[in-house]
Amino acid sequence: MIEKLLIITTGGTIDKIYFDDKSDYQIGDPQIGETLQAMNVAFDYEVNALMRKDSLHITDDDRAAIRGAIEASDARHILITHGTDTLVQTAQTLEGLDGRCIVLTGSLFPARFRDSDAVFNIGCALGAVQSMEPGIRVVMNGVVWQPGEVVKNVSENRFEARAG
Amino acid sequence: MIEKLLIITTGGTIDKIYFDDKSDYQIGDPQIGETLQAMNVAFDYEVNALMRKDSLHITDDDRAAIRGAIEASDARHILITHGTDTLVQTAQTLEGLDGRCIVLTGSLFPARFRDSDAVFNIGCALGAVQSMEPGIRVVMNGVVWQPGEVVKNVSENRFEARAG
Amino acid sequence: MIEKLLIITTGGTIDKIYFDDKSDYQIGDPQIGETLQAMNVAFDYEVNALMRKDSLHITDDDRAAIRGAIEASDARHILITHGTDTLVQTAQTLEGLDGRCIVLTGSLFPARFRDSDAVFNIGCALGAVQSMEPGIRVVMNGVVWQPGEVVKNVSENRFEARAG
Amino acid sequence: MIEKLLIITTGGTIDKIYFDDKSDYQIGDPQIGETLQAMNVAFDYEVNALMRKDSLHITDDDRAAIRGAIEASDARHILITHGTDTLVQTAQTLEGLDGRCIVLTGSLFPARFRDSDAVFNIGCALGAVQSMEPGIRVVMNGVVWQPGEVVKNVSENRFEARAG
Repeated sequence: MIEKLLIITTGGTIDKIYFDDKSDYQIGDPQIGETLQAMNVAFDYEVNALMRKDSLHITDDDRAAIRGAIEASDARHILITHGTDTLVQTAQTLEGLDGRCIVLTGSLFPARFRDSDAVFNIGCALGAVQSMEPGIRVVMNGVVWQPGEVVKNVSENRFEARAG
Repeated sequence: MIEKLLIITTGGTIDKIYFDDKSDYQIGDPQIGETLQAMNVAFDYEVNALMRKDSLHITDDDRAAIRGAIEASDARHILITHGTDTLVQTAQTLEGLDGRCIVLTGSLFPARFRDSDAVFNIGCALGAVQSMEPGIRVVMNGVVWQPGEVVKNVSENRFEARAG
Repeated sequence: MIEKLLIITTGGTIDKIYFDDKSDYQIGDPQIGETLQAMNVAFDYEVNALMRKDSLHITDDDRAAIRGAIEASDARHILITHGTDTLVQTAQTLEGLDGRCIVLTGSLFPARFRDSDAVFNIGCALGAVQSMEPGIRVVMNGVVWQPGEVVKNVSENRFEARAG
Repeated sequence: MIEKLLIITTGGTIDKIYFDDKSDYQIGDPQIGETLQAMNVAFDYEVNALMRKDSLHITDDDRAAIRGAIEASDARHILITHGTDTLVQTAQTLEGLDGRCIVLTGSLFPARFRDSDAVFNIGCALGAVQSMEPGIRVVMNGVVWQPGEVVKNVSENRFEARAG
């Protein structure tokens, strides 16, 4: 068993909720804590709700802040939830944090949707982060990808192997 | 990415459905294929629906059949769904299948329940089987356990670290 | 708006929960209160959890008790949840309670199932009980039936118009 | 039993779906047909998908079109799904359609959300439309309201009795 999992949340579709009075969809509180509680998980974790952004709005400064949050922690296992549009890009900026097992995931449908992929992806990311060698992985569509081998296919709304 | 995942289903709570005309609860078709399809997974898999049993009724012959199904396949990554009461026991009988990554999981609530742990556990098992070194793991309650370190706490209805 | 709704629960599939440690399905606490709270209903109600029985085990004495609970109350609007197998039969024994609007409903799948008809049926029963003339109605499969015109088709697992 | 139900859909939150590629929320196909099919309803209905609008964008012309669709049909029972912000206002413009039972409903959360009120409200509207005298009713939060007695409390995100 791992000692303690550090969870960093940054926003994205996974945390989107719906405000009827504005007929709008905004990023709410991180959903992952609620999910882990409902699933009655048997490990310790800490949630660092670092930012609440659509991934299209994540800047280089934000990516530096994510990296800083990892460096500031002594956790060896880190799970990051992130919007899907630039998830792979953020993953690539986290190279070189030696000795850490880092997994990034998100969801294509908000966690509050009936058939959302959020709970499945969180599960898959947890399974990966506990089993992998130190390094960085992206978990989407049931696959544990290396950052350099995966791309989001926006029109098909899924992650797939990068061509060529 | 893994080449192909072999999924062996054996029954258990995860596959239980409800028959109103009998006011009864029986093991139905494996739910995992439906889940993987709904999650739009980006890997190949094959489902071998080997048996439909409550895990309390799994015999030594059944365990030999599970082992045989693995040996008969050239898949290196294997996911087994199983009832929770004897899941750990079955895991222990699969030792010695060199070069295979084998993960057993199940669920404490039927997959068709609203807040079932089934989708989460399947996700977690998938993340583990793709990331681990060859060997055997049990995935329940968000943890990737070694077979010898975990036990089902029946009264609390959860898996936890074996005492001592 | 109605003044106050009396809800009498008797058990049945709608209230069935799953006990993993017994691999069994039993009648739990009434689910209707939880549903009405989640739906944030704008009326007053009182839940009388009268019994917890499969409807195949409901006796003439039980039916007398249900009738007694109605007579003992000054509520004019009554909603009864009941197992589906003898729901129509119980409805027929409640004739002659003048001046009361009484609706019986249940569900073909436990309320805790993902695609259960429970929430839909409770909604439909509420709409009927507030809108009808005094009398008795059975609500199942989206129809507000008179007790004499409906029958459960067990093999098809649905309620339908009684032939002839 | 009613002969045939005419269902008119106009859009609103109930039909909102989520487009990840636009990080946006738009009105999709009417959800009510899918719901009625899933609930295996035992009555005939026809869905007229008249428009797809947020109720804040429903104009007087749109309301005339809704009224026209009712007048053009020989159905005596009509169910209308509508955005919640101006649902009551639309209800009030349908006065004077003699001999028709008309119920308007919507939902505060999209039908695709896990704990949406959509299925409950549709059930409640169906129960009302089958049981009421000719006239117009608004169904929200479990209550069958007359159009003049109800108001949406936007900040509390619920419908309630109009003050004094």
